Amino acid sequence: MLKIVILGTGSLAKHLSNAFEKAKDVDVAQVVGRNKKELQKFSEYSTISNDFNAIDDADVYIIAVKDDAINKVSGYLLNKTGIVVHTSGAIGLKAIQPTNRGVFYPLQTFTKGKSVDFSTIPFCVEAEEKESLETLKTLAASISENVHLIDSEQRKKLHLAAVFVNNFTNYLYSVGEELCVEEGLSFDLLKPLIMETANKIQTMSPKKAQTGPARRNDIKSMESHLELLNKNEHITLYKLLSQAIKQAHEEEL
Amino acid sequence: MLKIVILGTGSLAKHLSNAFEKAKDVDVAQVVGRNKKELQKFSEYSTISNDFNAIDDADVYIIAVKDDAINKVSGYLLNKTGIVVHTSGAIGLKAIQPTNRGVFYPLQTFTKGKSVDFSTIPFCVEAEEKESLETLKTLAASISENVHLIDSEQRKKLHLAAVFVNNFTNYLYSVGEELCVEEGLSFDLLKPLIMETANKIQTMSPKKAQTGPARRNDIKSMESHLELLNKNEHITLYKLLSQAIKQAHEEEL
Repeated sequence: MLKIVILGTGSLAKHLSNAFEKAKDVDVAQVVGRNKKELQKFSEYSTISNDFNAIDDADVYIIAVKDDAINKVSGYLLNKTGIVVHTSGAIGLKAIQPTNRGVFYPLQTFTKGKSVDFSTIPFCVEAEEKESLETLKTLAASISENVHLIDSEQRKKLHLAAVFVNNFTNYLYSVGEELCVEEGLSFDLLKPLIMETANKIQTMSPKKAQTGPARRNDIKSMESHLELLNKNEHITLYKLLSQAIKQAHEEEL
Repeated sequence: MLKIVILGTGSLAKHLSNAFEKAKDVDVAQVVGRNKKELQKFSEYSTISNDFNAIDDADVYIIAVKDDAINKVSGYLLNKTGIVVHTSGAIGLKAIQPTNRGVFYPLQTFTKGKSVDFSTIPFCVEAEEKESLETLKTLAASISENVHLIDSEQRKKLHLAAVFVNNFTNYLYSVGEELCVEEGLSFDLLKPLIMETANKIQTMSPKKAQTGPARRNDIKSMESHLELLNKNEHITLYKLLSQAIKQAHEEEL
């Protein structure tokens, strides 16, 4: 049985503790956080505390707080022997003060109140000590079938890639919504297309899946599109993305 | 029973004829196209012809060819009384020469060899004659539960929105793939995130779903990301999209 303590009460802390609660051989012994109201929500299946100086002993301490608080929170664990991990894609391993440290990064976006199937989420684990790495692999495998050893450099690049495919993609969805609303149309019209676009690259390389006016250098269509756009940032974005697609496929034209 | 003729042998022609073949009260009487090899694939459930001067009489003629060939192909139907429709998002109704004309635009991306669930695909129909519009609605409803009356102006805007959420989004996926490959990582790592990002906005407005460094104006994270990027087009894109996200959420910061 692996005994764990979760530090933090945000969305990721909630999703993780929910998942671990159902896992065999893992015991969420304690959840520690400052926000009393949020903390209370963990009380049904774990001990809770808002005192960072009264953290239980455990095999693994999972710091699930904002990036810039990781270093400080890890300081409360300096006298512990268990493994101290953070859950961030962007922060290096060394931000953690205790020396038995690691990273436990689930590569997924977590939304408050929206359940997530952990079994398919890629877990990126990293640790300096070999034995600790094995423990983290076991812990991740208790909730996911998709565990990877990823070092800090690789993880930063992955996190950057995630910004492109998640944050930036979501912004393009919002442009789509805006264009629909302008025309008195429901954004629902675009939803099946959005799902299929994401679905398609599950089995096909996005480079191969690329279609559209820019892909086939259809200048007439691109010009009519630009005429339909009102906002400067949409025009700039349309031109830049079309140019990038054109360039990436130039050799094929 | 609605009798239809499909003109064209590409991906959309195939997907449509497959769907209509299973529909009650619709008969794909003939498929007409120049490409004999592709045409042959339709022969198991329809009469085929590569002679555009020997088109059967039908209730609806569906032109599923490239945008710039629509006008020409419609010219072969000038002596017909049935409704002549094209299937393009970008082309106006008036590109069709016969006067009993309309549009039958499925808002989806179609991939060769990849089956699609037509029942959820939004069909945008348009026609000048009221009776023809009713026929197109009935035809669309025979394969989809998602039929909309959309005029040419709205359809052009929808098609533009589709470029943002499909073509441009797919390009962002390809940037994600490139960043993974550079680091010796599998693009598979990003696939669950891509699915969840698309899933999320099925029930939540993308503007509300927006997360990431730009959303919270986390300058430090954005600067480290920019340092990790090598290609100029990726850097420009990162800056532009971050700026646009920041601007869209400025009032909330």
